Amino acid sequence: MAESGEVLIVSAPGKIILHGEHSVVYGKTALAASIGLRTRVRLRSSSNGATRLHLASLDISREWPLKNLSHAIPNMHGRQNPAPPQPDLILVLRQLSESDKGDIENSALLVFLFLYTHICSASGLPALDVHIESELPPSAGLGSSAAYCTSLAAALLTATHNISHNLSNSRWQQKDLELINKWAFQAEILIHGNPSGIDNTVSTFGGALSYQSGHISELKSIPPLSVLLTNTNIPRSTSTLVSAVKGNVNKFPDIYKPLLDSMGAIAVEGKRVMDALADRMLPEVSVACNTLESKDDLFCIWETLIDVNQQLLMAIGVGHPCLEQICRVTRKHGLHSKLTGAGGGGCCFTVVPPGVGANVVSAVRTELVQCGFVCWETDLGGPGVCVHAPDPAELHLAEEK
Amino acid sequence: MAESGEVLIVSAPGKIILHGEHSVVYGKTALAASIGLRTRVRLRSSSNGATRLHLASLDISREWPLKNLSHAIPNMHGRQNPAPPQPDLILVLRQLSESDKGDIENSALLVFLFLYTHICSASGLPALDVHIESELPPSAGLGSSAAYCTSLAAALLTATHNISHNLSNSRWQQKDLELINKWAFQAEILIHGNPSGIDNTVSTFGGALSYQSGHISELKSIPPLSVLLTNTNIPRSTSTLVSAVKGNVNKFPDIYKPLLDSMGAIAVEGKRVMDALADRMLPEVSVACNTLESKDDLFCIWETLIDVNQQLLMAIGVGHPCLEQICRVTRKHGLHSKLTGAGGGGCCFTVVPPGVGANVVSAVRTELVQCGFVCWETDLGGPGVCVHAPDPAELHLAEEK
Repeated sequence: MAESGEVLIVSAPGKIILHGEHSVVYGKTALAASIGLRTRVRLRSSSNGATRLHLASLDISREWPLKNLSHAIPNMHGRQNPAPPQPDLILVLRQLSESDKGDIENSALLVFLFLYTHICSASGLPALDVHIESELPPSAGLGSSAAYCTSLAAALLTATHNISHNLSNSRWQQKDLELINKWAFQAEILIHGNPSGIDNTVSTFGGALSYQSGHISELKSIPPLSVLLTNTNIPRSTSTLVSAVKGNVNKFPDIYKPLLDSMGAIAVEGKRVMDALADRMLPEVSVACNTLESKDDLFCIWETLIDVNQQLLMAIGVGHPCLEQICRVTRKHGLHSKLTGAGGGGCCFTVVPPGVGANVVSAVRTELVQCGFVCWETDLGGPGVCVHAPDPAELHLAEEK
Repeated sequence: MAESGEVLIVSAPGKIILHGEHSVVYGKTALAASIGLRTRVRLRSSSNGATRLHLASLDISREWPLKNLSHAIPNMHGRQNPAPPQPDLILVLRQLSESDKGDIENSALLVFLFLYTHICSASGLPALDVHIESELPPSAGLGSSAAYCTSLAAALLTATHNISHNLSNSRWQQKDLELINKWAFQAEILIHGNPSGIDNTVSTFGGALSYQSGHISELKSIPPLSVLLTNTNIPRSTSTLVSAVKGNVNKFPDIYKPLLDSMGAIAVEGKRVMDALADRMLPEVSVACNTLESKDDLFCIWETLIDVNQQLLMAIGVGHPCLEQICRVTRKHGLHSKLTGAGGGGCCFTVVPPGVGANVVSAVRTELVQCGFVCWETDLGGPGVCVHAPDPAELHLAEEK
């Protein structure tokens, strides 16, 4: 367990799907990258015989006296190889986590109790004080639940010495990251039923990855790509949208299946462009690459892929007038946008190529905010889960919030 | 030759491509139907030793003394089986038709001289007075050139007794229509180089047809379908757009070829829906069809096909902000729209299902006109080329214009 009074601060990023939402369900390649918006867990041991959780973004505080949790401790010691939680135990945890708030809040409480009881129970549950806040809007396709699961799993595994305290650049070693990722995935299953694993993997390892039929492969290096993220604030259900697309594909396979093929091909080409851009943007290879596609050529292809995929997503029925509005506003300023995630609302990202001035981005952002949307400028492919404290400066900041 | 002083009035319709523009170039099925906008030819013999042509819509009048045309008469008597015009003769006709106006005007004059010299030269060229006016905007994808070629070929073939004067319901017999269509196709070749033959076939036979790889098949019956046609007035070049799509397909075949496959499947399904709708809308079969897809179901599919194809056309790069604007305006009123023809501007059609009130169509139309567009309400699948006069009422009308 962490020393009494010592504060551990861990954060993990959200993600965007660059290409392949929906088509990934049909075995096609998807491409995802981490974003700069993160979820932060502040954890310290407590001495009052209870574990307290404060979810700042959801405005929830809960306290569980440890004696009330004794029947919720799993009969397992598999912290190094997490298995799916047992159904009867999940029922117990569900009762303990129930609130009069919505589904998101209940899921967050359930996941906390699941990770807490399963990771921390080796020698009796410790009393903890856990504060979690997130820059990621929930249910917007930005991987907020994965960032929550990943940062919480990492904090609990670190506090209980299941993973190393010897970090390099605030990052764990590969095997420790893999363990964090496995726990985060089990927690994601609790929330989503049958997640692909993309979200927790990006949140754990950062950078960008491609995914196909259960196989995840990280991109070796990713170019410095900036995006403007816009949230339509239109709520939507991923499972309803996935079902609607499935209905279309089943009813008119000759019309819709080719579109999924095309989306898969877009993701594959997108990966090639990202790899090539990463090469071009390393100064030492820029001369050797003069005979190849230029950086501008590659960005032009990248933008075309964004446009085509956006149209195809609308064609399969997951567009929304607000998403079209964002595309229209950004196009007026020469920028290209695409929905990310399930569509039907949710978020859109706009590519900001290196040459685009801050005044352009600022003008676009102002116009989008005037439309009633929420925007964030962020870089893609930043670090995955990492530790911020022990570090007095960070600690101070975190406590001020 | 027609009796001196007798007036012959012939008209032929334009068309819209319902589905399959662009994908038809790659061997996929296309679906086209005639529209209510027509081109009208008024022809009478003249006695002043010259042939006069007045193209009212293009504001052109030209007169050729017959003696100046003697070297332009082809050395052929193949009026019943028209062959491509000889290149040297085309050069002569081009010199005779040259004007200081634009390409459209020069093409119209060339086609007139071609059809006139080739159809009417059996026993020396007759002096004619020909007045042509059209409701069809040129270069908008509505088949204006085919309606011009078809109506002119029919008028000249009738005036010269190459086809029958014994008409039923103002329509020629099948073999006469086939001859008109062949001449119109030769004239279309002069204008477009390598036309598919869809436009002249729809203009000749009316109704609706499907086309694939040179094979044209008429739909047996077509349902009463109404559309609102909107012209963006954005000029575009079909050949430039076709080349741009070809460039995309060649560069990224895995991305674009599936979209063409999907467009072909949409046209096939569209044909099935039109056939089924035609069945449902015959009163005598409506009871027997109760267990099948309802008329409403079929219209719902029809509208989905319109939406998906519009998105795919935008995905292959032939959209335009004005076309998107039309789709947006009509969707606000619950109506579905799609570009027709080459895209990149040109025309859009909006499906008007039977249950939609005149007030809705009127509101949409008003809003589109306020955007600066031109609209026409028309039915699809009306009659092909037909004769209006000898008929004093019609003649009177035509002269008033």
